[in-house]
Amino acid sequence: MTQGEVWPKPQHETTENAYFTFNPSNFNVKVTNQTCATLTSAIERYSYIIKSKSGGQSRERKIVPGSKRRRHSDDTQDLHQGALQELEIQLTEPCEDYPYLEMDESYRLIVSATSKLESASIWGIMRGLETFAQKFYFSDDMNEIRINASQVDDFPRYQHRGLLLDTSRHYISLSNILKTLDAMSMNKMNVFHWHIVDDQSFPYQSEKFPELSLQGAYHSSMVYTKEDISRVVEYARVRGIRVLPEFDVPGHTRSWGNAYPNILTECYRGDEVIGLGPMNPIRNVTYKLIRDVFQEVQTWFPDKYIHIGGDEVEMDCWRSNPEIREYMRNNKLTVGDLHAMFMRNTLPLLANNSKVIVWQEVFDEGVPLSNDTLVQVWKYLWIDEMVKVLEAGHRVLFSSSWYLDHLGGEWPALYAADPRQMVRDATGNDELLPAVVGGEACMWGEMVDDRNVISRVWPRASAVAEKLWSAEVPAAGRRWRSSRDAPPLEAYRRMEEHVCRMIRRGVAAQPASGPGFCLP
Amino acid sequence: MTQGEVWPKPQHETTENAYFTFNPSNFNVKVTNQTCATLTSAIERYSYIIKSKSGGQSRERKIVPGSKRRRHSDDTQDLHQGALQELEIQLTEPCEDYPYLEMDESYRLIVSATSKLESASIWGIMRGLETFAQKFYFSDDMNEIRINASQVDDFPRYQHRGLLLDTSRHYISLSNILKTLDAMSMNKMNVFHWHIVDDQSFPYQSEKFPELSLQGAYHSSMVYTKEDISRVVEYARVRGIRVLPEFDVPGHTRSWGNAYPNILTECYRGDEVIGLGPMNPIRNVTYKLIRDVFQEVQTWFPDKYIHIGGDEVEMDCWRSNPEIREYMRNNKLTVGDLHAMFMRNTLPLLANNSKVIVWQEVFDEGVPLSNDTLVQVWKYLWIDEMVKVLEAGHRVLFSSSWYLDHLGGEWPALYAADPRQMVRDATGNDELLPAVVGGEACMWGEMVDDRNVISRVWPRASAVAEKLWSAEVPAAGRRWRSSRDAPPLEAYRRMEEHVCRMIRRGVAAQPASGPGFCLP
Repeated sequence: MTQGEVWPKPQHETTENAYFTFNPSNFNVKVTNQTCATLTSAIERYSYIIKSKSGGQSRERKIVPGSKRRRHSDDTQDLHQGALQELEIQLTEPCEDYPYLEMDESYRLIVSATSKLESASIWGIMRGLETFAQKFYFSDDMNEIRINASQVDDFPRYQHRGLLLDTSRHYISLSNILKTLDAMSMNKMNVFHWHIVDDQSFPYQSEKFPELSLQGAYHSSMVYTKEDISRVVEYARVRGIRVLPEFDVPGHTRSWGNAYPNILTECYRGDEVIGLGPMNPIRNVTYKLIRDVFQEVQTWFPDKYIHIGGDEVEMDCWRSNPEIREYMRNNKLTVGDLHAMFMRNTLPLLANNSKVIVWQEVFDEGVPLSNDTLVQVWKYLWIDEMVKVLEAGHRVLFSSSWYLDHLGGEWPALYAADPRQMVRDATGNDELLPAVVGGEACMWGEMVDDRNVISRVWPRASAVAEKLWSAEVPAAGRRWRSSRDAPPLEAYRRMEEHVCRMIRRGVAAQPASGPGFCLP
Repeated sequence: MTQGEVWPKPQHETTENAYFTFNPSNFNVKVTNQTCATLTSAIERYSYIIKSKSGGQSRERKIVPGSKRRRHSDDTQDLHQGALQELEIQLTEPCEDYPYLEMDESYRLIVSATSKLESASIWGIMRGLETFAQKFYFSDDMNEIRINASQVDDFPRYQHRGLLLDTSRHYISLSNILKTLDAMSMNKMNVFHWHIVDDQSFPYQSEKFPELSLQGAYHSSMVYTKEDISRVVEYARVRGIRVLPEFDVPGHTRSWGNAYPNILTECYRGDEVIGLGPMNPIRNVTYKLIRDVFQEVQTWFPDKYIHIGGDEVEMDCWRSNPEIREYMRNNKLTVGDLHAMFMRNTLPLLANNSKVIVWQEVFDEGVPLSNDTLVQVWKYLWIDEMVKVLEAGHRVLFSSSWYLDHLGGEWPALYAADPRQMVRDATGNDELLPAVVGGEACMWGEMVDDRNVISRVWPRASAVAEKLWSAEVPAAGRRWRSSRDAPPLEAYRRMEEHVCRMIRRGVAAQPASGPGFCLP
């Protein structure tokens, strides 16, 4: 495994063999320009990580069986450049308060006796601090912490680098959500897509409509209060992570119906009601509740964007309902039109200047969407879909290849997908590429709960994080011909170090690629 | 989910709707016949489980979305038969000290105000106590702990119900091994197959040959000392679980070579040595070391059986080695003959009266094996292999369908395999069935370590446990026509309860079959 190499890989990096030694008690961080509470807390956080014995340093992980362990001889002595004394932080523009899609995350880091980290943005400083922390490693004899002389000029390839967590199929504790945010910041991911409610349970505890979680949560202890949400938002904010709430409508809403059954559609078999389906698109009560709930949600979640779902609507239920059938007949609508109508009615219920993310079906049904809408592509045949969405002038979030609940996919398989590369291959040029703004690893909750969610997500989501941050792997460095963006060999070694790093920083990542160990 | 139903399903059980309430402070366990320290400790263990608030009781897990939660009306009042007062334990024969393949695990349990558990064997008493503990459940209003009047006559279908744990690809901590034994006893599994060393590391800390783990373990902290082993053996023994050590030879032994490279074969490409392969079958030092190590191992592990592996020998390495090539030429041996010779030479090195388990390759290579040898079938085309082994007069352990590292397999897929059914289908009669003595779920360690091993094994191994304990599912109860032993619907509900039970008893099992929750 590597020593002191960074995940995700920086865009430009030169590293020398010369190194500095690190002594926690003789090291100092100095802020020489703009500062703010967010910067101070970031410095505290990373000082702790860097200085704590069990912190961000990497140690040897793998022994090749049958081989002698590596022992550096003393000829490395002359590479020692003395002690690392200081990190100077230059934030050249005032702090911004809340992260956003177009934020600047670029930074420059120079590691020398007096190291420098420079950015125009607080978000860039955070990314640079993470890089700095990752560059420390133990000497082979474990007696010294070292960091190599180096220069990093870094920025993300995609703006939106997300992780979806589903807290409806199984409830996930607040502490595991915060742990997830820790891990995201280690991987420079910047959007926590909180798929907070769904058919199975409604853990969002509304102040306006307490019955929703009283009736819809699995248990009174399995809710997220206003305080919980504000804690998650703040914990994420100081790590440069946006929290994107998803309230999926009109499908995936059965848990709303525990408290408010009349907003759901009664599904029929013949003349008999056999259950409740998606929201009822022809009743005013439906839109009134959506409006009031979304209003509260948008007060609690500061992000400009809200995800309103729109996927997998059970059209057969709509078709089966006599009242809705009559409505469709009278208005000459197909069920697809009905879905479009529902979404069209819902969009104006959002706060002014809201921006919207939807699953691809909403685009597919022909709902008129503003150009700043993000369309999240998740289904099969994703290349055609991306091109269609882009050609219609919308922006794309890619998730099809990154469903973490599909167990087959160990990290090298997830690493093989690159949405811009696919679009370039399909169109033969780069015109549409900028509108592919990013992607998300999706951890749907059917088979994960508090006991296995962390190890199921990490390090597999790290593969997605690197694809979204780092430069495109040049063709020459690619390993598999059939799926051209599979990991280069160096990434396997870097991943081993990264897994041990996450484990030491409290994230119970699972093994990446096979046998091995992390030093205790 | 079910309430107070047992996993694995007892052979014969009648349960009434009438129930008793349970008050920990007014409940007593009485031993009326034989007793011994093992029985006393089992009673203490289960008293704690039954009496502790967070103990073995089951609670409601699933809410069907959109439906009202179940509320029993007061018409259940007249089913209340008063308080459970006592469990009388009748062990009719003296305690045995250590569990063994042919041990008696049958028991009879009668639940009434004064309940009775009867067995001729301490092992049967343990299984009955587990059943008793599993039958408690909370009333729907959560105010009462109840147990239904019932009678259970139970015994295992297969004698050997094992779980293989690989502690070489990743080191597994002692506490997770003990946790695994706890979970095994909850699932009435009775053999802990400890695949303790392999190519990647040698965590067994020998007293005679300390260099083996000094050079071969991943790290000085990642070893099992004599005391650790004796703790595992004792912890298992008092739960009626045998500990079966595997020291796989002559392949999978590269970690032996860190300390003793000359017992391994040098593999050649042309004239050049390119690495070390399997044990060298033509050197005396090899057999001398095996003899001495096995002698120590058989002192530390009291089981009559030892697993000596014999799988996946890299024959190409033997073929490439000039010294071995010459030996084969001089003695007119194929590499298959060489493998057979190696195993033949190894068998006499074991302690007197040892019994042996081998992987199927040893049988396939035609090594003469005594009739009490167990042949573990693990490869593809397992039906033919089982029939061949059985027709040659040996006994079979089945594992092919139960590799837990194959992630595709959620528990219903594991549940579909039934080795005796397969043999009956292949031969058309029941003659060979008794010699299929059992099977093992195998948790190979490439992708599991301390962080995910428990949730990866449980509850999937529970499916294997039930197939090995419970009666064959009658054809009428089978759910999938194409793989006839898939779980009946009641098993899905019982599994939900069992997962919550394991979690409450400290085993971090993963979700079984989809969305849901366990009450806190």
